[in-house]
Amino acid sequence: MKRPVHGGNLAWAAALVGCSPSAILDFSASISPLGPPRSAIEAIQTNLDLLRAYPDPEYGDLRSALSDFHQISPDWILPGNGAAELLTWACWDLATLETTCVLTPGFSDYFRALKAFGARVDRCLLTLQDGLATLPLDAQKSGLLLNNPHNPTGQLFSKESILPYLKAFSLVVVDEAFMDFLTPDRQQSLIDEVEKYPNLVILRSLTKFYSLPGLRMGYAIAHPDRLSEWQQRRDPWSVNVLASVAAIAMLKDTAFQQQTWDWLERAKPVLFDGLKQLPGLHPFPSAANFFLVRTERSSVDIQKQLLADHQILIRDCLSFDELGDRYFRVAVRSEPENQQLIEGLAKVL
Amino acid sequence: MKRPVHGGNLAWAAALVGCSPSAILDFSASISPLGPPRSAIEAIQTNLDLLRAYPDPEYGDLRSALSDFHQISPDWILPGNGAAELLTWACWDLATLETTCVLTPGFSDYFRALKAFGARVDRCLLTLQDGLATLPLDAQKSGLLLNNPHNPTGQLFSKESILPYLKAFSLVVVDEAFMDFLTPDRQQSLIDEVEKYPNLVILRSLTKFYSLPGLRMGYAIAHPDRLSEWQQRRDPWSVNVLASVAAIAMLKDTAFQQQTWDWLERAKPVLFDGLKQLPGLHPFPSAANFFLVRTERSSVDIQKQLLADHQILIRDCLSFDELGDRYFRVAVRSEPENQQLIEGLAKVL
Repeated sequence: MKRPVHGGNLAWAAALVGCSPSAILDFSASISPLGPPRSAIEAIQTNLDLLRAYPDPEYGDLRSALSDFHQISPDWILPGNGAAELLTWACWDLATLETTCVLTPGFSDYFRALKAFGARVDRCLLTLQDGLATLPLDAQKSGLLLNNPHNPTGQLFSKESILPYLKAFSLVVVDEAFMDFLTPDRQQSLIDEVEKYPNLVILRSLTKFYSLPGLRMGYAIAHPDRLSEWQQRRDPWSVNVLASVAAIAMLKDTAFQQQTWDWLERAKPVLFDGLKQLPGLHPFPSAANFFLVRTERSSVDIQKQLLADHQILIRDCLSFDELGDRYFRVAVRSEPENQQLIEGLAKVL
Repeated sequence: MKRPVHGGNLAWAAALVGCSPSAILDFSASISPLGPPRSAIEAIQTNLDLLRAYPDPEYGDLRSALSDFHQISPDWILPGNGAAELLTWACWDLATLETTCVLTPGFSDYFRALKAFGARVDRCLLTLQDGLATLPLDAQKSGLLLNNPHNPTGQLFSKESILPYLKAFSLVVVDEAFMDFLTPDRQQSLIDEVEKYPNLVILRSLTKFYSLPGLRMGYAIAHPDRLSEWQQRRDPWSVNVLASVAAIAMLKDTAFQQQTWDWLERAKPVLFDGLKQLPGLHPFPSAANFFLVRTERSSVDIQKQLLADHQILIRDCLSFDELGDRYFRVAVRSEPENQQLIEGLAKVL
């Protein structure tokens, strides 16, 4: 089996060490360990009857729930088969421009989707001190693709630091897949700005915070004209009905949301300190639910040994060209699990 | 709400008459009334835990089950988020050719997808007596898109009648979404030919025969090089994990398959005769699980009255340009439900 370019590939890891996928303690996918919320599972279980009919192509109930949640009109929202599907259509739009600046290191699927549509890509190296990279000269004919908080570094860009780019670039796509892990008062989402900028596209995911990546559920927030065009490119029933009912239930589940923020506030600093105290490891401060870690030893070796000895899977960074084999990424999991990771790493290092 | 261009839009119908979508007896979507099979629902219920992890991007287990079912190597199979998703990628390929012949009347989503990729379309009128239309002169530079059995007429083309087109056209896409409703000895699938023709793409659906259109599950069978290209265009997790486990269970459910064929053999001729005996209605013989019916009165009026008086939804044919308002389509449902339709129509006509 080929080395995967994404986290969370348990089939690959299980085959490598000869165990069942469910036996693996997965730190490689940046998914909350608390979910899925009971509200989501109950919504799925009580709505299995809906499977007999096609989804509503307008996704009226789902759009309405998202509209309530974000306080934005439903026609500015397009649900998708995971944020990953919507990234495909965003990259189609970006590919019509002269070039697209992608903040690097960047999620490998950005490059896959841009390449599929024949886009010209400028890799703009993230400078961790100064925030975003320098503007290219021809920004008006170009697109910009970034994520906030940034994956894999965990860096958060302030709203104010992104606004100038909205004025400079022809199209700005901001992947906010991890924004909901921040408490509302700390979020730096651009959703409030979208009605002012028809050249802004925001991508959101519901499967990381609510731990349902197997279900596929994301959405885009952008100008209605753009979203109508996207709907012409794809088939009418892109979101399955169970993802739709689960999403509606989860968006209202404020208790689960609060529980997640509370857990993260407790667990994150402990994991950060644990990693920092291990020899040769240098974690980066992070606004999200994961840490990028620089390591003095090969991360591939560490990954292999952790998997073999402890059935713990961490995310190597080989698919991020600028990082390679001296970096790895780990998700924040429950406090006992984080402790297992620290103990496993201590033995392996 | 806009008049829908597809069958099965219960949200639209329910809003029109002010009832709940589940109260409507739906003859408009060509879905089996027998399913979903218990095997599929059990597979979903017992695998909800899988939702916590990403789908395997290789879909190894699912491809292997499809490979066993069709006796074809797994790398010739690509699962999709419904056959509808795979139609999008097939139309991308068709759009690279000089022109694409589409057999008409044709499913409106064919035209949506071809238009999205800027394809030039030649509408080739189906002649019900002689089978396929005459070959265009420049077939070698062209694509052909047809479905077999044909929707909405229900006509079945023999394998032999399609083979010459595989030699003539640069690319032939055959949508076999309704092929599984025929018993294996009567099927005219081109799956056995695919290894001989790298220019052949077959699209299959699992949600019509097994009544799970809300779950989204289809697959393409074509040359591995073509399928690898499609995988580069789309994100890696297009099929949700519940669709995947349900598919694996259903493919092995030979009892459900036999039950479906038995029901159809009994119910179809009775419904056909019932329709034929009503004044002004002329059903076409059909190889699939639905009938196209020519009517001397407006089908939109009949649809409206059936919905208002009997909460029965039939499929108008306004979205098929060549048919318009003197045709409608009905699915074959259970025998008592078919009787309800006949009685409702008798009162309305």
